[in-house]
Amino acid sequence: MEFVKMHGLGNDFVIVDARKSPLLERTDWEDVAIKVCDRHYGVGADGLILVLPSEIAHVGWRILNPDGSEPEMCGNGIRCFARYVYERSIVTDKVIQVETLAGIIVPEIQVENDQVVGVKVDMGEPIFERSKIPMTGEGDQVVEEEIDIQGNPVKITALSMGNPHCLIYVDKVEEAPLTEWGPIVEKHPLFPKKTNVEFVEVVNKNEVRMHVWERGAGPTLACGTGACATIVGSVLHGYTDRKATVHLPGGSLAIEWDEKSNKVFMTGPAVEVFQGTYPLK
Amino acid sequence: MEFVKMHGLGNDFVIVDARKSPLLERTDWEDVAIKVCDRHYGVGADGLILVLPSEIAHVGWRILNPDGSEPEMCGNGIRCFARYVYERSIVTDKVIQVETLAGIIVPEIQVENDQVVGVKVDMGEPIFERSKIPMTGEGDQVVEEEIDIQGNPVKITALSMGNPHCLIYVDKVEEAPLTEWGPIVEKHPLFPKKTNVEFVEVVNKNEVRMHVWERGAGPTLACGTGACATIVGSVLHGYTDRKATVHLPGGSLAIEWDEKSNKVFMTGPAVEVFQGTYPLK
Repeated sequence: MEFVKMHGLGNDFVIVDARKSPLLERTDWEDVAIKVCDRHYGVGADGLILVLPSEIAHVGWRILNPDGSEPEMCGNGIRCFARYVYERSIVTDKVIQVETLAGIIVPEIQVENDQVVGVKVDMGEPIFERSKIPMTGEGDQVVEEEIDIQGNPVKITALSMGNPHCLIYVDKVEEAPLTEWGPIVEKHPLFPKKTNVEFVEVVNKNEVRMHVWERGAGPTLACGTGACATIVGSVLHGYTDRKATVHLPGGSLAIEWDEKSNKVFMTGPAVEVFQGTYPLK
Repeated sequence: MEFVKMHGLGNDFVIVDARKSPLLERTDWEDVAIKVCDRHYGVGADGLILVLPSEIAHVGWRILNPDGSEPEMCGNGIRCFARYVYERSIVTDKVIQVETLAGIIVPEIQVENDQVVGVKVDMGEPIFERSKIPMTGEGDQVVEEEIDIQGNPVKITALSMGNPHCLIYVDKVEEAPLTEWGPIVEKHPLFPKKTNVEFVEVVNKNEVRMHVWERGAGPTLACGTGACATIVGSVLHGYTDRKATVHLPGGSLAIEWDEKSNKVFMTGPAVEVFQGTYPLK
């Protein structure tokens, strides 16, 4: 199996063109993802991304976590995917329609001097309705709702960017209990499909710092949908403007929550690391 | 740069044939190792291994840790290296002389039905002389010497297998303070060139369980020289026979400390994971 390893802010992916036989017919991609993503016995990655045919968009994708589970979307992954399909002429338009579990996502290749310098992604509109995040319980928007974590009263703000996010604002993001609270909030009964967890420190109106615990993956260097959810949540609280930068352990993403369209746009890098051949059984 | 990723018990290596120009002339391999071994921004590995020419053996090798430092030897690495040079016909003998910083090491390819099934490595004689481990302080052999670790009196046994090892016997290896004590012992002033640190649980006369903190690398799934040192130390204590199996987090190694030759032999697997091309700047 030919693959390319790419990363978006250190969030790294094995990308495979699975549009043709015999890869197209495989039904064991969950097992392949578990093996390939293993960092000692496999290639090592935060996810396996498949390029697939689509009848309703330019191209289809599927993304699998290292545990074989399947997120609806992944912001850093979609940038890598877009650069991959553009540079290999699988799609020749710079504005690429991608069929995903979260609907059609439209990344836009940014080119300077014939070089791809970044990818802007229309991440769609945020979803605030509790049942659609999805979350159990009473009420509609989830803003500063108090929950109990190991006996501590903690205020959360939750929303969906196609996948669920739970924001917790903190004074110092480095001191946040990421690996202790992350898995507890991820699997909290309020979230029937589990959730991503973001610890957010507001720097000023145009900058925040964020560490993420990704659902099914644990702590990662960056999470694109998490960065979008972070700025949407921060605007709701009046902490930042609609256009702001999110600083993550792996680097920075420029986020804009457009007032007119209500859509969230994310701009950031996608880097090819190496190519390889993995012997599939 | 073409490479092959291999692992010995999950201890994984990027192997590069650097016998020819332009790779042979490079002088920045420490920087290359730091970049290539990074698990998010590079290929990801516990070490970078170079195949080099030799004037005194069949072939030369160099191994670099993820931090760019250079260990004298690496037992799991040498098995992967041996299989690599044999299967690519760089060396056609099954008994391969390899020039290393620890002298000439002689791995032996084990073949069944034309398939390589494992590699037996003559790891040389253990070195007990304190100054040659190297360790500072008084006395000759270092057996059950008491040192202070964070206020705890701890008994250590130290020896060299070409590189320094410090054994600490424990009741339950899972409960050993690997990540707390590992870095403290690694950099203890007794060891002027630092040391690998092994926590060892004796199961019976033929089996031990061991977790390792590798010098310059941290916790790894397996360490070949560490497994050899473990059985030598266990024989000194009367804990095991000269032929015993070491169970590591990544799998098992058969170790024999031969009475006649005084040499230690290690037998274990070496597995090719994938091939790739990494763009060197």
